[in-house]
Amino acid sequence: MTVICLPDELSRHWLTDSASADTVLVWDGVGAPPAGIEQVEFLVPPYRGGAWSTAVLAQLPALRLIQLLTAGTDPWIEVTPAGVLLCRGGGLHGSSTAELAVTGLLMHWLSMPILFSQQTAHRWQRVGRETSTGKRVLIVGAGDIGSHVARVLRALGCVVSLVGRTARDGVLPAADLLGLVPDHDALVVSTPLTAQTIGLVDAELLALLPDRAVVVNVARGPIVVTADLLAELRSARLRAVLDVTDPEPLPPGHPLWSAPGLILTPHVGGGAIGWMDRAGALVRDQLRRFQQGEPLTNLVGPIRTEAAGPTVNA
Amino acid sequence: MTVICLPDELSRHWLTDSASADTVLVWDGVGAPPAGIEQVEFLVPPYRGGAWSTAVLAQLPALRLIQLLTAGTDPWIEVTPAGVLLCRGGGLHGSSTAELAVTGLLMHWLSMPILFSQQTAHRWQRVGRETSTGKRVLIVGAGDIGSHVARVLRALGCVVSLVGRTARDGVLPAADLLGLVPDHDALVVSTPLTAQTIGLVDAELLALLPDRAVVVNVARGPIVVTADLLAELRSARLRAVLDVTDPEPLPPGHPLWSAPGLILTPHVGGGAIGWMDRAGALVRDQLRRFQQGEPLTNLVGPIRTEAAGPTVNA
Repeated sequence: MTVICLPDELSRHWLTDSASADTVLVWDGVGAPPAGIEQVEFLVPPYRGGAWSTAVLAQLPALRLIQLLTAGTDPWIEVTPAGVLLCRGGGLHGSSTAELAVTGLLMHWLSMPILFSQQTAHRWQRVGRETSTGKRVLIVGAGDIGSHVARVLRALGCVVSLVGRTARDGVLPAADLLGLVPDHDALVVSTPLTAQTIGLVDAELLALLPDRAVVVNVARGPIVVTADLLAELRSARLRAVLDVTDPEPLPPGHPLWSAPGLILTPHVGGGAIGWMDRAGALVRDQLRRFQQGEPLTNLVGPIRTEAAGPTVNA
Repeated sequence: MTVICLPDELSRHWLTDSASADTVLVWDGVGAPPAGIEQVEFLVPPYRGGAWSTAVLAQLPALRLIQLLTAGTDPWIEVTPAGVLLCRGGGLHGSSTAELAVTGLLMHWLSMPILFSQQTAHRWQRVGRETSTGKRVLIVGAGDIGSHVARVLRALGCVVSLVGRTARDGVLPAADLLGLVPDHDALVVSTPLTAQTIGLVDAELLALLPDRAVVVNVARGPIVVTADLLAELRSARLRAVLDVTDPEPLPPGHPLWSAPGLILTPHVGGGAIGWMDRAGALVRDQLRRFQQGEPLTNLVGPIRTEAAGPTVNA
C-alpha cells in the first residue's frame, strides 16, 4: 500500500480504475494538511503555483517521490528533501508548448499583428508578408518541445538546426551556439532553466542575430536577459515571441508591455485541453513502476543524498 | 523568336539570362499598349488586378499562350480567346497560402485573438486553450495548397482527411463530402472556384459541423455563402478564418467586419516574399517548353477551340 497525495479532487479519477488499495489524499500544499499526511510517500503537487516551501514539505516525513506535472523542475531543485526522488512532467506539455512557438513565428512572418489591427479598424489593405519556406531556425533545447518544433517547422519548409547540451545524431553541441546564431532567421529557446542557461540569451548573443530575426522563448523567463532583448525590440532590429517573462507574471507598467515587435502571451504553452488525461496516464504508470520497483520515467534524480550536501542535476 | 509581354519592369530580369533573341514588351493591360503589342504570342498578366477584358485582349491578335501568376484561373475562363492556351501559376503561392490556413487554425485553437487583446490592454491573465493534437481536419481541395496544409497539420498531430474532385490514393471523392463533415473539428477550403464549388459551403453543410468547429477559406470568396457563415458566427456556434471574401475587397460597414470568432485577412495567402523568384523560374521554364514544343506545365487548357463554343475546363 502506498499513500499518495494528489493536487485536487478532479485528479482523483486518475487512480479510481487502479486495483491497488492505495490511500489517496488530496492537498495543494496550502492551509491545513489532511489527516494522514505524515504517511504520504508519493506526492503529485499542483501544476500551477510553483514549489512548496521546505517547511511545508517537512510535514511529509515519509516522502519518497515527487512527481511534478510541469516540464521544468527549476523551483523544486532548491527544496526537494534529501533522499527524495524528483520526477518531471515529461511529455505532458511538449506538443502544446511547441505549437505555441510555431504559432508565434508564423504570426510574425505573416504580419498577423498588423493584420489583426487592420481587422479591428475594419480596414482591408494588403501588406507585405514573409513565408516560412526557407527560413533558417535555430532551436536551443533538443528535448520534448524542441524536437516537436523542429518536426513542424521542417514540414513548413524551414531549415532547422537543433542544439542540445551534448552532441548526438541530429543535435549540435551547446558549445557551437554562438557560432551558429548569425546564420539563422529565428532563435527558439526550449531548454530547461539551469545554472548554465540563466541569462544565456544576452546582448552578446542577440547582437549576432541578423536584422528582423525573431526570438522565441517558451521555456523560462530568466534564460533571456529582459533588458537586453528590450533594447533590440525598441530599436526595431529584432522581433520576439515571449510566453514566459522575467519577472513573471509581468507587472503592470513593465516596459515589455509596450515593446514593439513583440507577441506576448501569459505562460499558456502548457495546460492545453487534454493535458490532464496525459497527466493521469503518467501518474498511473509512475505509481505502478514505483510499487513494482521498475525503473522510473522522467526521473531527474535524488537532488540530495541523505548523507552529503546538494547534488544538483538539472 | 517569340514576342513576350511581361507585367512590369521588375519582371524583365526573369528573362535577361535567356540566350534567345526574344522581344520583351512590358504592359499591365491599362492605358495605351506599347508598340509591337499586335505581335505578342506569350502573355504574362500582372499578379494583382484580375482578368483583362475581351476588348483589351483583342489588341493581341497573335496571342497563343497566357501564363497566369495566380493559382486560380476563374476570372480568365470567361475572356480567354478561342484557341489560346491558359496556364495557371501553379506552385507559386501554394505553400504561403497553406501556411496562412495553418496559422489561422492555430490562432483559434490557442485563443490568440483573446491573448492579443489582453496584450493590447497590458493584462496578464491565463486563458483556456486548445491544442492541435488530435484535431480532425477536413480539407476540400487536394492540390498544391491542400496537400501542403495536410502535411503541416499531420506534423502538428492532427488527423487529416483530404477531399478532391476524384478519389485517388489518400484523397476521398467530393461525393463523400457531406457525410464526412460531422466528424471534423475544422474545414479548410482550398479548391478552385468553378461551377461545382460556387456556394459549396452553405447553411446545410455548415449545420453539419460540430459546435466550435473552425471554417477556413483561403481559396475564393464565393465558395462560401457569406450570409450562411455569418449566421453561424453571430450565434457563436462556429469560428472562421477568411483570407478571401464575397464581396472582395470587403466594403466598409459589411457585417463580416464585426462578426465574432472571425480572423479576417485581406487576401494575403499568396504574394509572400520570394514568390517573384519562383514566378521567374516558372515563366522561363514555360517559355522554353513553348518554344521547343515540349508539354507545358500548369496547363488548364484552351478554354475555347477555334471552331466550337466554350469548352470549360477548370
